[in-house]
Amino acid sequence: MNVLVIGANGQVGKEIIIQLKQTAHQATALVRKKEQVEELKSLGANDVVLGDLEEDFSHAFKNIDTVIFAAGSGGSTGADKTLLIDLWGTKKAVDYAKSSGVTHFIQLSAADSLDVDEESEKMKPYAVAKNMSDFYVEKSDLPYTIVRPGPMNNEKALGKIELHPTRQDHFNDYLITRKDVAQVLVKTIGNKKLLGKSFYIKQGDESIEEAVNKNF
Amino acid sequence: MNVLVIGANGQVGKEIIIQLKQTAHQATALVRKKEQVEELKSLGANDVVLGDLEEDFSHAFKNIDTVIFAAGSGGSTGADKTLLIDLWGTKKAVDYAKSSGVTHFIQLSAADSLDVDEESEKMKPYAVAKNMSDFYVEKSDLPYTIVRPGPMNNEKALGKIELHPTRQDHFNDYLITRKDVAQVLVKTIGNKKLLGKSFYIKQGDESIEEAVNKNF
Repeated sequence: MNVLVIGANGQVGKEIIIQLKQTAHQATALVRKKEQVEELKSLGANDVVLGDLEEDFSHAFKNIDTVIFAAGSGGSTGADKTLLIDLWGTKKAVDYAKSSGVTHFIQLSAADSLDVDEESEKMKPYAVAKNMSDFYVEKSDLPYTIVRPGPMNNEKALGKIELHPTRQDHFNDYLITRKDVAQVLVKTIGNKKLLGKSFYIKQGDESIEEAVNKNF
Repeated sequence: MNVLVIGANGQVGKEIIIQLKQTAHQATALVRKKEQVEELKSLGANDVVLGDLEEDFSHAFKNIDTVIFAAGSGGSTGADKTLLIDLWGTKKAVDYAKSSGVTHFIQLSAADSLDVDEESEKMKPYAVAKNMSDFYVEKSDLPYTIVRPGPMNNEKALGKIELHPTRQDHFNDYLITRKDVAQVLVKTIGNKKLLGKSFYIKQGDESIEEAVNKNF
């Protein structure tokens, strides 16, 4: 598959690029700044495309089969960027994916995006943006998969997770490493069992391979 | 019909309440502050309910047939309130309307909400919020009507408009008075021809009665 990684310069994005190198997939990294190109190439991207989620980035979708949307405006910018990048960026990515014939849109979401009203005032705008982004993905008529981890850390990969179609616990219990999240996203590529599905992940006892291939 | 007006204390909201008094409909005004209750009653509301769009306001939907969503956070607050009131407030209103059996959800939108990328930086977050709100309304399975005026002023009612299913001109050309917008919203109540439709309005030469009853 030709895989476009949106948000390739982010912490999860870089892990996806590193792990895609171990597969037969071709990775195209979408980054915003010229100075990020070399690093992404050295991490294993077959191609690096410059584009800004606040502008038109449709050129990045040429010859792409699968999109992984792993971008986010981050915690240091305001709600305006949350609206324009996390929400509108997803909306545009979905529209570009549809018009360029993408066959799988993999959305990195969050375990808490469905429970906006339980969130702190500070996190609410982000949760609203992710919630509505996910809704747009689900209603897009694109084959999609939505992956919902809880809080992520930078510990080493465990290779083992728990996967649930619905959230069972408080989202803070959905702790998981970014490397394991990236592995789940990469193993979602081309996985027909996961089309049209959303699921929650946290660290657990099942191998990622098994977890993403069971029926639910 | 029992009509719930969300955002009844706004400029368009008050006009809706005033005009509903001339009809056989029963108007319930949803307002945020206790001190707004008396004014809304004096304008003609049959009932005034207190509720905050940032909290749970499901109690306002009891015995309601038709909802007019005319609320907005306004230009003086930030993008966080745009996300929480204009977008998430609409989302919650739609969900409450669905679960309480509302038969018509009338959404006051804007002529520019479909063209986010043409907007100024300042207006973009608002346009994103309205665009995604409208999308949520359209995909809600509720019978809906979305009304899109351009810039509104407080001139006296003309009683005459132009109505288009698609936008023909630059949105700034869609100038219209708030009184005429309120009249269009009130004449949309119970109008079966307008179910599942969105349309643009501006001042024009056709009577509002004729415009909202033609086929398009």
